[in-house]
Amino acid sequence: MKKEFASRVSLTSKSGLNAIYPSQDPEMISFTGGFPDATLFPSKELADSFQIAISNQHSPLQYQVGEESIDLREKIASLLNNDGTVTNPELIMMTQGAQQGLDLVAKLVINKGDGLVVEGPTYIGALAAFDAYEPNYYSVSMENDGMNLTELKRILIEKSVKLIYTIPDFQNPTGVVMSLEKRKQLIALANRYDVLILEDAPYRWLRYEGKSLPTLKSLDTQDRVIQLGSFSKILAPALRLGWLTASGEIFSRLKELKAGADLETSNLMIQTVNAYLSKYSLESHLTKLQKSYRIKKNAMMTAMRNYMPENISYTDPKGGFFTWITAPQNYDLDNMQIMSFKPAFHVMVIPSTNLFPDKAHKNGARVSFSSVSLSQIDSGIKRLGNCLSDSYQKQSI
Amino acid sequence: MKKEFASRVSLTSKSGLNAIYPSQDPEMISFTGGFPDATLFPSKELADSFQIAISNQHSPLQYQVGEESIDLREKIASLLNNDGTVTNPELIMMTQGAQQGLDLVAKLVINKGDGLVVEGPTYIGALAAFDAYEPNYYSVSMENDGMNLTELKRILIEKSVKLIYTIPDFQNPTGVVMSLEKRKQLIALANRYDVLILEDAPYRWLRYEGKSLPTLKSLDTQDRVIQLGSFSKILAPALRLGWLTASGEIFSRLKELKAGADLETSNLMIQTVNAYLSKYSLESHLTKLQKSYRIKKNAMMTAMRNYMPENISYTDPKGGFFTWITAPQNYDLDNMQIMSFKPAFHVMVIPSTNLFPDKAHKNGARVSFSSVSLSQIDSGIKRLGNCLSDSYQKQSI
Repeated sequence: MKKEFASRVSLTSKSGLNAIYPSQDPEMISFTGGFPDATLFPSKELADSFQIAISNQHSPLQYQVGEESIDLREKIASLLNNDGTVTNPELIMMTQGAQQGLDLVAKLVINKGDGLVVEGPTYIGALAAFDAYEPNYYSVSMENDGMNLTELKRILIEKSVKLIYTIPDFQNPTGVVMSLEKRKQLIALANRYDVLILEDAPYRWLRYEGKSLPTLKSLDTQDRVIQLGSFSKILAPALRLGWLTASGEIFSRLKELKAGADLETSNLMIQTVNAYLSKYSLESHLTKLQKSYRIKKNAMMTAMRNYMPENISYTDPKGGFFTWITAPQNYDLDNMQIMSFKPAFHVMVIPSTNLFPDKAHKNGARVSFSSVSLSQIDSGIKRLGNCLSDSYQKQSI
Repeated sequence: MKKEFASRVSLTSKSGLNAIYPSQDPEMISFTGGFPDATLFPSKELADSFQIAISNQHSPLQYQVGEESIDLREKIASLLNNDGTVTNPELIMMTQGAQQGLDLVAKLVINKGDGLVVEGPTYIGALAAFDAYEPNYYSVSMENDGMNLTELKRILIEKSVKLIYTIPDFQNPTGVVMSLEKRKQLIALANRYDVLILEDAPYRWLRYEGKSLPTLKSLDTQDRVIQLGSFSKILAPALRLGWLTASGEIFSRLKELKAGADLETSNLMIQTVNAYLSKYSLESHLTKLQKSYRIKKNAMMTAMRNYMPENISYTDPKGGFFTWITAPQNYDLDNMQIMSFKPAFHVMVIPSTNLFPDKAHKNGARVSFSSVSLSQIDSGIKRLGNCLSDSYQKQSI
């Protein structure tokens, strides 16, 4: 039988997303998943909110057909407005997590071969979403204060680019925050070279130190920033509830693409989260999350200082779920994970290979501290450090 | 600012999906929506099932990451096996309603310009999903026993076709069931011309008369049928829970596309429906639905007999949500809806225009009986009949 798939499938079948899948090894300590800590889910409050939602007389089990409840969007708009991003409920649409926003925005702008700038490294799931539209990727190096704008400018001058994808706050996978100066410059460059920006902000409200910087959307004066947000990290992933905010024709075309993709987001989940936000304080919940993740982040930094050999550098994130380790250029952490981290040391990370579109960077890895316990952080990073020290010594001999 | 969208957007912005949106007119009787009857939702049972799900110790609020619960898929596999379709839980994946299955299958096989056969008329949301992949549509006429296979064969001989999309049971929008003979011939044609079949079966278990015919998937011996199902019509749309079953590389590639599109379907909704199916009898619920919809369908047929002028024909569906009216060739029901049905008679249907890819068929309309009351069926069809009689008389003068 003919197995003639669309050409996009040759890309989408190599995303490496399965690197996140759990291991069957009972001794394994895994730093792979970008999962929230399940012990922090507000289960009782969500169960209560669900009962409120399903008892609502406005048929929460029915289709919404173009009349997606305004209540939740009003609350999201007010959260965004309080965060400095001017928007309104009419310019917010609900998505299946922020992930669906990535798919829809690429669907909106990318023809096969169109230029798409991503940070290198970037979110593995974003590449999985974008791959389906067969873009021409341009990867811009990440620095300690965000993407390298000199590289970006060169690309914008030389190439035809339609979209820049960035995670300005606690970037996945590096944990880096883009500086205010770079945020302003990025907007200026997008204006000058007439490019859209996709600002992905799922971790923004999980800051453990310092003060928030303005969102890219708040600095945008030309309606060229599309911003994504999500309840996955701050309430629970299984709600599959994210949102997208944009303006004008971009927004109306995205709504049409959403309808074609899955008609609509679950009214039941929308009403549940609306009831949660009406009855409970998201702010107190965020404070609780920040407190707990701050402790984990600090434990991760302590473990890194204690156990990492001197040739390994790592980032010190001010929020989010990830730190990023960088080994010397000649290290292939993908290979080491298969040959040594997993089988001999029972520890797993996400090697950098699949986090760059060209899959050519082998010496970095994402290390997540969000869903592991404090003792797992200590033991797991000790294992990772020992394993890396071993190879360091072998190389030094 | 540059508003250069991907070329697909020129199609997706014209789906006409908004024709389904409700009217603000308080006197309106609308036969547009393919909604289930909200009074039949098992709200209490689903509320109870949700409480069971959220109390589950296996973190129903967390990501599933490649380990989508097997429990619900086992139950679906057994429902499908009892229905004569051989599959197994490993070959079932959950989707955001069957709608997402339409998007993913088109994403899998359609390159811009590839041949895609649809029934004419077909499901408006299917066209909205497919449009994003810019297929070359071939529309095959619907007859009383399913699509015209002589037309299909001619297309398969003359054109390069990758996929045939069909709703064999209580087709949306005509209500027609494909005969067993045509089912067998369709499989034979697909085998001979090496084409995939997408079998969309959301209404299959809502049969009000007669016996079920074998699914296309059950007749398939070459793994070329992808079948979609959904809990939207038989439990509730807001669960956003559908499924897809396929085999081999088709299935594994679809799983990758699903991950890129939205990572995964809500674990919470999966666990809720699993709890529902464990504790309650879907069979009794289906019996209740069938009984109630049978009464509505019969009321619709009575109203059609009573009020439709003689030049209007209509189908007598044995299940599902829709009947289909056909007016003489020179009628433009889209125009009549705007000029007369809505403003003067306060009644709405879905005119055929947007249900054909070429938007050139104006004299048909989908009339849904599922979510209207018995008295609305009588009054609404009377209005529609009066309006059509008016124009009939005008034309006859």
